[in-house]
Amino acid sequence: MQRIGNTELLYGIHAVREALMAGRRRIHKIYIPEKRTSQRIRKLIALAESNRIPVRYVSSETIRSTLKTDNHQGIGAEVSPYPFVDLNRLLITFKEDAEAPLLLLLDHIVDPQNMGGLIRTASCVGVNGVIIPKGRSAPPTPTVSRASAGALEHISITQVTNLVRTISTLKEMGIWIMGLDQGADNPIFFSDVSGPVALVVGGEEKGIRSLVRQKCDMLVSIPQTGRIDSLNASVAGAVAMYEIYRQRQLTKASGTDR
Amino acid sequence: MQRIGNTELLYGIHAVREALMAGRRRIHKIYIPEKRTSQRIRKLIALAESNRIPVRYVSSETIRSTLKTDNHQGIGAEVSPYPFVDLNRLLITFKEDAEAPLLLLLDHIVDPQNMGGLIRTASCVGVNGVIIPKGRSAPPTPTVSRASAGALEHISITQVTNLVRTISTLKEMGIWIMGLDQGADNPIFFSDVSGPVALVVGGEEKGIRSLVRQKCDMLVSIPQTGRIDSLNASVAGAVAMYEIYRQRQLTKASGTDR
Repeated sequence: MQRIGNTELLYGIHAVREALMAGRRRIHKIYIPEKRTSQRIRKLIALAESNRIPVRYVSSETIRSTLKTDNHQGIGAEVSPYPFVDLNRLLITFKEDAEAPLLLLLDHIVDPQNMGGLIRTASCVGVNGVIIPKGRSAPPTPTVSRASAGALEHISITQVTNLVRTISTLKEMGIWIMGLDQGADNPIFFSDVSGPVALVVGGEEKGIRSLVRQKCDMLVSIPQTGRIDSLNASVAGAVAMYEIYRQRQLTKASGTDR
Repeated sequence: MQRIGNTELLYGIHAVREALMAGRRRIHKIYIPEKRTSQRIRKLIALAESNRIPVRYVSSETIRSTLKTDNHQGIGAEVSPYPFVDLNRLLITFKEDAEAPLLLLLDHIVDPQNMGGLIRTASCVGVNGVIIPKGRSAPPTPTVSRASAGALEHISITQVTNLVRTISTLKEMGIWIMGLDQGADNPIFFSDVSGPVALVVGGEEKGIRSLVRQKCDMLVSIPQTGRIDSLNASVAGAVAMYEIYRQRQLTKASGTDR
């Protein structure tokens, strides 16, 4: 992880820009290679300067050795740690929100690219919050922020020590726990997922852990044809999130209250 | 690209295994690091030996320097070039197939990870073929095969010199050309996409080129909420492919013939 003491090193144009826009992290410094003058970078520099954030011009070599990646797109930022949202705070926002809540629970997603991809899509469908179990999930590192195209900087992420207990809390609030499981008999396309839902996406290798699976109100699968046995976890999660989104739009359009 | 003369160097367990299973490429040699003995690799060795393919045990360092990647999962294979399918051959298969054809046209997808992801999903929904414009698309390299989890080894890929002309041919066959365009007014979820369809997915940066866009019968978008302006190209393509798949399943289930 790109981390120095109590600061993190964000990199990539979207990640740095969205951190600036979201205003949730303190941004201590921005690093730019001396020769970099693309229009996107110049816009970002102007934005940083209007926020009185120091911009340091350094060599490309310094950028690479500081950020420990080649994937920086010519920009880095020294920022305060990722701003997790407390579970209680997250649950309160549901009551303030008129729409049925939609949550994403990531049980054991370990690849930062998949994590970032899921968060990017979650942001596109308006997920209220993402819940991850401490120690059983990729943490929301700068790599995840880059892979999410900066969506990580806006979305609410809650880290919990016991996902099973959190699921019980959500159930008491009337939220349906829907596990995505390729072995399930119910195709998501033929299931009613238009109500208050927490979608559980399991890890890349073994799917949802059995203790978590047992707590699900419903297990749904994404139908597949052909030889290759499984969709990428980030794609499977995206298809499921969009099916929920689609059904909600349909419910709204038809004016029915299911 | 991992290529020596007229051979390519595949890497990754899924890519090598699926190339073996598909039987479309000649496999000259398989490389394994001396110390690698995972069960998955042992199964692969047995499969190779039953097909009389020579297995060479080399040092990890040789594997890495030969394949020019760290992402090889302890296996490489020297194989014949990617077996493209001729356009005419692809179009003939439609007539043999009872189901309405579903094609994927990739206009200017340049990232091998996105290309591989799209091909993996295309395989899961049973796409009949993928058409890419020569010189305006990432070619189907070993990196794409790895990113597709080996789906590339089974799917039919056709390379054409003029995508616009190919679209005219498809139209004459009664195939609807549906462009995925984030600026389009019609959300895909409210459009009828259950018939014979060629889905056009545009490049990561600029979307579908205007000459290609003009030839589309219909432009559809994937609705989005939130701050980040666009879905990843591979995810957008996946959501669109699954919406087509969903509508087809629905049409089948209801027994109507639209």
